[in-house]
Amino acid sequence: MRVYVDEVHRHVGEEITLKGWLYNRRSSGKLHFLLVRDGTATIQCVVFVKDVPPELFERAGHLTQESALEVVGTVREDARSSLGFELGVREFRVLHDAAEYPITPKEHGPAFLLDHRHLWLRSSRQHAIMRVRSTVVAACRNYFDRRGFTLLDAPVFTPAACEGTTNLFEVDYFGTPAYLTQSGQLYMEAGAMAFGKVYSFGPTFRAEKSKTRRHLTEFWMIEPEVAFADLDDDMDLAEDFLVEVVGRVVAERRRELASLERDIAALERVQKPLPRIRYEEALATLAEAGKPVAFGEDFGGDEETVLSERFDRPVLVHRYPAACKAFYMKVDPEDARLALCVDVLAPEGYGEIIGGGQREDDLDTLEKSIQAHGLPAEAFGWYLDLRRYGSVPHAGFGMGIERMVAWLCGLHHVRETIPFPRMLERLTP
Amino acid sequence: MRVYVDEVHRHVGEEITLKGWLYNRRSSGKLHFLLVRDGTATIQCVVFVKDVPPELFERAGHLTQESALEVVGTVREDARSSLGFELGVREFRVLHDAAEYPITPKEHGPAFLLDHRHLWLRSSRQHAIMRVRSTVVAACRNYFDRRGFTLLDAPVFTPAACEGTTNLFEVDYFGTPAYLTQSGQLYMEAGAMAFGKVYSFGPTFRAEKSKTRRHLTEFWMIEPEVAFADLDDDMDLAEDFLVEVVGRVVAERRRELASLERDIAALERVQKPLPRIRYEEALATLAEAGKPVAFGEDFGGDEETVLSERFDRPVLVHRYPAACKAFYMKVDPEDARLALCVDVLAPEGYGEIIGGGQREDDLDTLEKSIQAHGLPAEAFGWYLDLRRYGSVPHAGFGMGIERMVAWLCGLHHVRETIPFPRMLERLTP
Repeated sequence: MRVYVDEVHRHVGEEITLKGWLYNRRSSGKLHFLLVRDGTATIQCVVFVKDVPPELFERAGHLTQESALEVVGTVREDARSSLGFELGVREFRVLHDAAEYPITPKEHGPAFLLDHRHLWLRSSRQHAIMRVRSTVVAACRNYFDRRGFTLLDAPVFTPAACEGTTNLFEVDYFGTPAYLTQSGQLYMEAGAMAFGKVYSFGPTFRAEKSKTRRHLTEFWMIEPEVAFADLDDDMDLAEDFLVEVVGRVVAERRRELASLERDIAALERVQKPLPRIRYEEALATLAEAGKPVAFGEDFGGDEETVLSERFDRPVLVHRYPAACKAFYMKVDPEDARLALCVDVLAPEGYGEIIGGGQREDDLDTLEKSIQAHGLPAEAFGWYLDLRRYGSVPHAGFGMGIERMVAWLCGLHHVRETIPFPRMLERLTP
Repeated sequence: MRVYVDEVHRHVGEEITLKGWLYNRRSSGKLHFLLVRDGTATIQCVVFVKDVPPELFERAGHLTQESALEVVGTVREDARSSLGFELGVREFRVLHDAAEYPITPKEHGPAFLLDHRHLWLRSSRQHAIMRVRSTVVAACRNYFDRRGFTLLDAPVFTPAACEGTTNLFEVDYFGTPAYLTQSGQLYMEAGAMAFGKVYSFGPTFRAEKSKTRRHLTEFWMIEPEVAFADLDDDMDLAEDFLVEVVGRVVAERRRELASLERDIAALERVQKPLPRIRYEEALATLAEAGKPVAFGEDFGGDEETVLSERFDRPVLVHRYPAACKAFYMKVDPEDARLALCVDVLAPEGYGEIIGGGQREDDLDTLEKSIQAHGLPAEAFGWYLDLRRYGSVPHAGFGMGIERMVAWLCGLHHVRETIPFPRMLERLTP
């Protein structure tokens, strides 16, 4: 009976068949220990000289890394292994003898590993990260699905360069220029007026010539948008969402986080209430830390790092100056210099993981803002329609999956958080 | 207390507050009937002349379609309405007076409606379709999540034109040409060798100059791939997957399907076993139907329609001629003219919704196939690596979400199955 490694605990004492790849091998006289992975987990398969024919014992001692195997044996408890079980091998068959595997236990540089990403994904470290990512995605979707949000996929091809063309990828769309989406937000606003509560989840693109540890040209965003919601509702939603997603990852991926040597206690502290500070309070904190920023300026990675290190859980920084934020932000009625927006900064220096806020819902104000930002009014006809037909207060946010995964896994660079990263100088494999 | 319309059944006899938009209005002397939608559902709000101040009664008679309202009233049972409840209004507040709404109950052509897609999404028909889509996506993901598949997002930017550049969108990637993905399959094969069972779910792109009812330039695909699996395993998986997804949509979206006047009985017939026929049997069927196709030719939309009309449930057509299929298909060891592939055709003339098969896992054969197809070998170095290091039989498939939704909803054209469709002549809004 063919069994996956993560199911062996149900077959103790039984003879089973495993199919997988040789991850590692060591020998000790009359024993060969074959570490076999099948994608679900890794198990030690023990080949004892007296249990198998001589030629098979000999063969076991010469198997190459990543060779494909079918192994028949009996499941035994083994308290010493992290799996808790091992396989006593009766026979095995080599399905494919792997050529000399390029990724060895020795150190490889990031360029070499990224060139071999299709193979690097087989390592236990990459497994742990991809499983965390998979759980983050499922947790995000389930959060909104269970609360009556309608999934509304935003288009990737967009006709207008909504915030300038500088960071946009352009495509020749049957003779017309089109741009790859940077955010589904404007479409989600249309969706919120139709469905009340919506979210999109898909890849977004930024043609930034940045080579920082926080930038990918292609990354995934989840973007909820809610009608009849203001900035406070938006902050409540972001807080509740983040606490639930982190909680689920900690609950379901504890083993993976431990294997990445992540400080899980730091993630367990992500409980309500999350601190909320105004931009102006953040300025004071930065000045104290010897990193003064003038009122009106946005924060860069350095400032976000300083701020996020001040708290033991994510912090919501709200009401940035309107001048440094996008045209669609609603201005604070209590202080016209400020926008009703919020950024959530992850702790431990990870910086922004969520950005959002309340959107301008007044037609005249929005038209003036589009003009003031030097944007082409004609491209926003449909967007302005949302303020002509039943305009209501509404708010939303976007969370970047890769930065979230980087923080949760405690990774220095986002390049390991996505199966096939795309960066300024990286388009392969 | 603010309540969503889909929650009113829990508040019978209570005074609640609704927030929504005026969907329709009719008056009858001393009564105004305001049909209010809030995205979750629609409710009739009854304004009785004796229950509200005279100026408010007057105002109710002049409200414009899609105006935003906050309505306070008491929930009453109402067996005549499809919701089962209505609201006896005590007071209401107009949050926004909508300008004259462009979409009226009269007929509009598709071009007009597509130009106003951001508003068209507010209609009850579009709500039903988008809710079905939302459930299809959740059901697909849950199917694989629950069975131990790891989600592995495929990249959108790809370096090589794997199957020729004819139908590819090209992007200037910092001075290098890149192409938008047509399928994540090759990447999923790498994933299957790492994780055993994987799936990707994301937008894919095809620059086809086709203006048919089955084509979008941007559409969503779910693509599972399994190591140690052959064509039979692949067909079993596709069958099981399809039956579960259809079953869940029928169970959870019965009301929406009914509102679309979908023949639900036709969907309830989607039970195992699904018929499986060989390509050559399909040829015989087509000849009988007076649509002969020569051996070696692929089927077009017309042939798929004829075939799928022959069955009362989806049919699996397998073992097409290798010559009309992609380079990575494994050749049938029992008949070298045939590929170990399968297409699933939806009934009622909907045609292909799933395409897949077993992949060539032998290095030499694959290298020759790449050469025979005139493809650039250097672009496939990483893909060939999968046959160098532990190559095993593997198989997978891709399902197009939009065609699935079109079939489930009984729609003639795929343009209504995605929030913001992109077609040959459609890039807006």
